[in-house]
Amino acid sequence: MQEGDFVLIQVEDKRFLRRITKDFNLNYKKRALKFEDVVGKEFGTLVNGFYLLKPNLEAIILYGFKRKTQIIYPKDAFYIAFKLGINKSSTVLEFGIGSGALTAVLSELAGRVVAYEVSPEFYKNALKNWDTFGLCKNVEAINQDFMDADLSGREFDACFVDVREPWLYLKKVHSVLKNSAMCGFLLPTTNQVSRLLQEMDGLFAGVEVMEILLRKYKPVYERLRPEDIMVAHTGYLVFGMKIM
Amino acid sequence: MQEGDFVLIQVEDKRFLRRITKDFNLNYKKRALKFEDVVGKEFGTLVNGFYLLKPNLEAIILYGFKRKTQIIYPKDAFYIAFKLGINKSSTVLEFGIGSGALTAVLSELAGRVVAYEVSPEFYKNALKNWDTFGLCKNVEAINQDFMDADLSGREFDACFVDVREPWLYLKKVHSVLKNSAMCGFLLPTTNQVSRLLQEMDGLFAGVEVMEILLRKYKPVYERLRPEDIMVAHTGYLVFGMKIM
Amino acid sequence: MQEGDFVLIQVEDKRFLRRITKDFNLNYKKRALKFEDVVGKEFGTLVNGFYLLKPNLEAIILYGFKRKTQIIYPKDAFYIAFKLGINKSSTVLEFGIGSGALTAVLSELAGRVVAYEVSPEFYKNALKNWDTFGLCKNVEAINQDFMDADLSGREFDACFVDVREPWLYLKKVHSVLKNSAMCGFLLPTTNQVSRLLQEMDGLFAGVEVMEILLRKYKPVYERLRPEDIMVAHTGYLVFGMKIM
Amino acid sequence: MQEGDFVLIQVEDKRFLRRITKDFNLNYKKRALKFEDVVGKEFGTLVNGFYLLKPNLEAIILYGFKRKTQIIYPKDAFYIAFKLGINKSSTVLEFGIGSGALTAVLSELAGRVVAYEVSPEFYKNALKNWDTFGLCKNVEAINQDFMDADLSGREFDACFVDVREPWLYLKKVHSVLKNSAMCGFLLPTTNQVSRLLQEMDGLFAGVEVMEILLRKYKPVYERLRPEDIMVAHTGYLVFGMKIM
Repeated sequence: MQEGDFVLIQVEDKRFLRRITKDFNLNYKKRALKFEDVVGKEFGTLVNGFYLLKPNLEAIILYGFKRKTQIIYPKDAFYIAFKLGINKSSTVLEFGIGSGALTAVLSELAGRVVAYEVSPEFYKNALKNWDTFGLCKNVEAINQDFMDADLSGREFDACFVDVREPWLYLKKVHSVLKNSAMCGFLLPTTNQVSRLLQEMDGLFAGVEVMEILLRKYKPVYERLRPEDIMVAHTGYLVFGMKIM
Repeated sequence: MQEGDFVLIQVEDKRFLRRITKDFNLNYKKRALKFEDVVGKEFGTLVNGFYLLKPNLEAIILYGFKRKTQIIYPKDAFYIAFKLGINKSSTVLEFGIGSGALTAVLSELAGRVVAYEVSPEFYKNALKNWDTFGLCKNVEAINQDFMDADLSGREFDACFVDVREPWLYLKKVHSVLKNSAMCGFLLPTTNQVSRLLQEMDGLFAGVEVMEILLRKYKPVYERLRPEDIMVAHTGYLVFGMKIM
Repeated sequence: MQEGDFVLIQVEDKRFLRRITKDFNLNYKKRALKFEDVVGKEFGTLVNGFYLLKPNLEAIILYGFKRKTQIIYPKDAFYIAFKLGINKSSTVLEFGIGSGALTAVLSELAGRVVAYEVSPEFYKNALKNWDTFGLCKNVEAINQDFMDADLSGREFDACFVDVREPWLYLKKVHSVLKNSAMCGFLLPTTNQVSRLLQEMDGLFAGVEVMEILLRKYKPVYERLRPEDIMVAHTGYLVFGMKIM
Repeated sequence: MQEGDFVLIQVEDKRFLRRITKDFNLNYKKRALKFEDVVGKEFGTLVNGFYLLKPNLEAIILYGFKRKTQIIYPKDAFYIAFKLGINKSSTVLEFGIGSGALTAVLSELAGRVVAYEVSPEFYKNALKNWDTFGLCKNVEAINQDFMDADLSGREFDACFVDVREPWLYLKKVHSVLKNSAMCGFLLPTTNQVSRLLQEMDGLFAGVEVMEILLRKYKPVYERLRPEDIMVAHTGYLVFGMKIM
């Protein structure tokens, strides 16, 4: 580890994602971790009760990304990315970008991501998040309402839509997708899901609606039990494949 | 679509994954789909009430893979693959392969997968599954107990273990992982999780235990509701990062 | 146990609820249980691999009630009964009765239940269910649409509504409830819940919407784990208290 | 409502359970509710944005009971009470009492409850909780370890055990239960469940293990969705029926 690197610090059951800078300083219950304790060490080292670990994409999203809006949680984003059926030869369309969490996940699996975000504030924040962690090199991000996007002649292998009224965009989405391409949606309310399902009819087949629940356990071998509290809802996922 | 291709057929709320052969024939409630109806058609076409769709990896695993043992479900496999923190520059270790579902998912995200399976029957079945669908080109599969593997000098970026008594392998796993590399486990019972947690102590940090529940809804806009029945358990996921 | 009694028979992980008659005969995997094996025995006895147990209300509802319609599951019925805030001095209103499962539960806790069912078929079936098991002595059952009920001058301490379009009955329900009385509803779809919530506004306060999930585990001490499959949905519960 | 009564106050999505005393005063977002606003009013009245409602047993337990220890949640207590198969003619045994929540629920359904609590602090607190709300008139509470209880010649129709090491008490419990009587247990960890299951063998049949999850929704008709956060775990329920 050297100056400028990010480190995931595990101390007891707490986690911190921090950049190693000259003035780095983490205090936890009378224990302290400073720049000199970290720099030059290998990931995987235990220093003064602090484990210094290499952050994976999940840790970066959960603890490193600045949020201007609700993020798409890793549990959902990981499922979405594979569900879209994409790989290194695929070009994926996404809108809106939000805080950029899903984009970062799609970017790992797809060849290319074309992503729209109408809000200048969210757009700038997402770009900053990616830049900070060196992510999304294969992403073409556009600060524009997808409705106004000029995509004549372009075709996408898959699409993910995270906006409040996705039904307004359905025909345009349909027009730029390859036949049988998967399109996904995330929606917080049942009313939105109902409305979307109604409008997808005739444009998409194999429609699925689902939610993913992640339940964590306290990792104590002699007292194994779920956490007291869990996230009960992030959103409903809707998927369908473009029909002609 | 041409002879030899796989097609995902959606008819009402049923799904079939079939290879297009000369004698292809699917009957569903008095409707029939034959070779001539399918060959030459584009994915996304509706023929006689049957939607002809392009199968994604999830469909291939769920409907196409032959199972000699319990598969790792896509809901779990997708999460695992990203959680392991792997990308195109990573080499992942996996054992046991089982029916090869997780391997196929890891293979999409990682640069290289080295996978062990002790049972000749499972091993052959997994290879057949991959071969049938043209998957896992970057996988080095070995029909051997991981315990007997000669890995001197090799180092892995991540590992996933799906065997009944993973604690027996912990020290060897630890010895071939890079520092801070993520190692995951899938275990069906709480007794196994307890035992594993006990043995991971001192070898792995940032240990997490969780389960992922996928709840599907009937995609009917005016009567939106969950399915009557759901999979209640596939397994507990355990993750930890190698410490020195 | 004597002729005419009901017995809950547990053999391995299977359960049967049977009446002891002269021609009683239960076969399970080469083992047989006959009238002579059971009559005169005490509950709690093990005979030939069959445990002879006394059925509780849950067992009666799940294994003994004939169903002409979807029952309200014990997990929901038990919660509803207490949630309604009733006791021996309360009179509860219920419609529709359906197969009579909830009525049987309410009847245990309330002083009196007044219950309506419009379908003659369901009505007769519910009465038969209660009669068979000697339940619901304090229930006044009426084969009538609640809309047509003459309830002038009557007041109820609580109410439960299990019909497809409960909003049609809201004003009448409101008019026969005591101030602050709890009223509950069971609805299978989110669309119905939305519609009901909209119509409850101004008539009920403290409105709650919830679902109850019961997850069973295999009771094997050295391999403790959830069942593979669970009931994913029975219905959404809605509760509110009458306001003036 | 008069001085000394308890009132459940609903204001927006917040709830308060309060006793009406001369110095009663509730402030919420610039609105105030005072003694004069409440006394003499009927339950069900809206005063200044505050709904004045009659508390049911659930509200009393959740918002009124003082807790010296983790309570048994209403969702669990309601299920337990009916599962035990008790009614007005039953005498139920319970230990330990804890904060007295389950006792209050059992007391509504059973004829008589005999309840033990070893801790003088918990015992006094439970009695105070019951006394405050006029509950548990049919409960015989004893400040003693159940192990030391002299129960010669007594027989119980059902039993519920909420202690850390229930297996230590199993033989005694078995000796005071009627044949086929249901006995229930609440345990937070899987290790305890495993241990208990092992020890129940040969003493109880029809053993079941389960957990009950209650998921609440935001009661907003045009934006229906689950709450963001839910209670993920209160405990595992174990039930078995005494065999001879």
